[in-house]
Amino acid sequence: MQVVTVGLGERSYPIYIAKGLLSKPEILTQHIKSNDVVVISNATIAELYLEKLQFLREEYNYDEIILPDGEQYKTLASLEIIFDGLIQNNCSRKTTLIALGGGVIGDITGFAAACYQRGINFIQVPTTLLAQVDSSVGGKTAVNHPHAKNMIGAFYQPQAVIADIDVLQTLSKRQYLAGLAEVIKYGCIYDAEFFTWLDINIDEILQCDTRYLITLVQRSCKIKAAIVSQDETEQGLRAILNFGHTFGHALEVFHGYENILHGEAVAEGMMMAAYASQYFGTLSNAESQRIVKLLEKLNYTIRKYSAIDLEKIIQTMLKDKKIEIPGQLRLVLLNKIGDAYIKTVSTEMISDFLSNL
Amino acid sequence: MQVVTVGLGERSYPIYIAKGLLSKPEILTQHIKSNDVVVISNATIAELYLEKLQFLREEYNYDEIILPDGEQYKTLASLEIIFDGLIQNNCSRKTTLIALGGGVIGDITGFAAACYQRGINFIQVPTTLLAQVDSSVGGKTAVNHPHAKNMIGAFYQPQAVIADIDVLQTLSKRQYLAGLAEVIKYGCIYDAEFFTWLDINIDEILQCDTRYLITLVQRSCKIKAAIVSQDETEQGLRAILNFGHTFGHALEVFHGYENILHGEAVAEGMMMAAYASQYFGTLSNAESQRIVKLLEKLNYTIRKYSAIDLEKIIQTMLKDKKIEIPGQLRLVLLNKIGDAYIKTVSTEMISDFLSNL
Repeated sequence: MQVVTVGLGERSYPIYIAKGLLSKPEILTQHIKSNDVVVISNATIAELYLEKLQFLREEYNYDEIILPDGEQYKTLASLEIIFDGLIQNNCSRKTTLIALGGGVIGDITGFAAACYQRGINFIQVPTTLLAQVDSSVGGKTAVNHPHAKNMIGAFYQPQAVIADIDVLQTLSKRQYLAGLAEVIKYGCIYDAEFFTWLDINIDEILQCDTRYLITLVQRSCKIKAAIVSQDETEQGLRAILNFGHTFGHALEVFHGYENILHGEAVAEGMMMAAYASQYFGTLSNAESQRIVKLLEKLNYTIRKYSAIDLEKIIQTMLKDKKIEIPGQLRLVLLNKIGDAYIKTVSTEMISDFLSNL
Repeated sequence: MQVVTVGLGERSYPIYIAKGLLSKPEILTQHIKSNDVVVISNATIAELYLEKLQFLREEYNYDEIILPDGEQYKTLASLEIIFDGLIQNNCSRKTTLIALGGGVIGDITGFAAACYQRGINFIQVPTTLLAQVDSSVGGKTAVNHPHAKNMIGAFYQPQAVIADIDVLQTLSKRQYLAGLAEVIKYGCIYDAEFFTWLDINIDEILQCDTRYLITLVQRSCKIKAAIVSQDETEQGLRAILNFGHTFGHALEVFHGYENILHGEAVAEGMMMAAYASQYFGTLSNAESQRIVKLLEKLNYTIRKYSAIDLEKIIQTMLKDKKIEIPGQLRLVLLNKIGDAYIKTVSTEMISDFLSNL
């Protein structure tokens, strides 16, 4: 078993990575500090994996709250469903929430844990590649606002993250590829060697080969943990994790959360960001093409947008959380693969770049 | 001007206490770190005092969000109104929220600030006695759940608290008395000398004499700051601030938030807690009578409840946030005036106590 530690002083916690972890109750139970446990999941995942957590029902004062599946349910309304369930069960400050699902379930459960009685414990059991390598690690929790993603949330760390590699085998190809996009992001922003490893082994990785998956999840988590440990609340460095996300979040709003997966939007956003790194900065054409080609192997592409569409996308980007000066967007760009930086760009420049893309 | 500091390391902040502070823009503006300011208030307070903050409109990128007045609006729905307003105005992470109002506005604005983009700055400008001496200090923010008070929230500290004593002159007698109840609480739990000072000077205090008011607000804030500095997130000591509140919160739910002020419920709850301190512990009859008599001078009394009513109240108490063992209530009781402790009491014992009250 691989263990990656997210080092945050008294809020430090382990990420366990291995095959078959869901069949080892003690991995989970060592992090439950009282008798009360509530599992939060969605209908799809509950059908696949809730049975694996059957031992909780036997050993704890147990309850479960099952939400509908999809990013469109990552709302204050779903949060209310969770609060209603917790209050109905007289859940105390000692209750532990367990997030069994992908990024949506993890983010919403984490935020519910942050707010319920001003903070209770929670454990992440991510069941998608994207959640294992990204959203379950680092303590960013949130729900969406209809007009802007992750607008309402908290920095709130889990007690542990349990990444069972076996669950990735039941992922749809679409979900799997969306997760791989975030993995490629880590190579782009922080680790050129990892990018090359992904580039060389992409065929085996696309086959979902377990030996590669363990390395891939572990290395991604290590990079994310290294960045988060240095900058928990995104005062500086952590912002580079948003490579492809300023475009990506706007694409999610444009297409509607129910029509595009987060990882798909990020993949398209990273292609845009690679070209933007050429356009606004110093990334070579060769390196930008390496990024685009690798993402194309995952069948991602930049779609065609009309001038009216682009205007809508830019307007959404202007609501981005990273904006500090009105009308000025903060983009994560690359000097080269493995070396990211932040650049402030005016609306006009973005507009010019996108219309020439 | 009196300044009380809440000492919490890098989250420390000042409480300014004096007459006429709202007419001194620099007191407020020194704590605003960017060009974006949004004032959150309610309809009643806005009519009285929003004009005083007119300078903000002239000097900043300014917006205001006015909620309806009342504890029944301290809900997730009101929070959504605030988020909608902030997003509509493209408010960034640099925006400062200003809570102009009583405890409801302060609590809800603080929680909105804690969650919006995972945390933005806010300043408390409390306009009721209760808010000046209690809710604006210490960083407890929250909204209510229909079945339990302050169930959803965060520990989140303001940049500053500005307590203008003049605003207390426009308070209704009812609001003023409700605030005094929390002031008396500080004497009960932490400072026998302050209790005696209140007892001796109660007639002048009931006349809203400014000289007494400054002392009263400053001493209350000092006690709260001392307790909060030692235990920000209520791991231990801070729980004594809930003297009268376990009963009080249940009374608020029982009567309906719109029919009883928080301070009124706490006053009745403190009378119950004084008797409970006799019943379960060591408080002398003489001291319990001093507390009851002082609260009676504010026209508070313990109402009559039928057996069915008491059962409902106990059921609500069982949803209290301070519960750690199911069916066991944690009451704040007194050894003597100025010396509080926590006692765990079974439902049966509470039931027996209440039915014999």
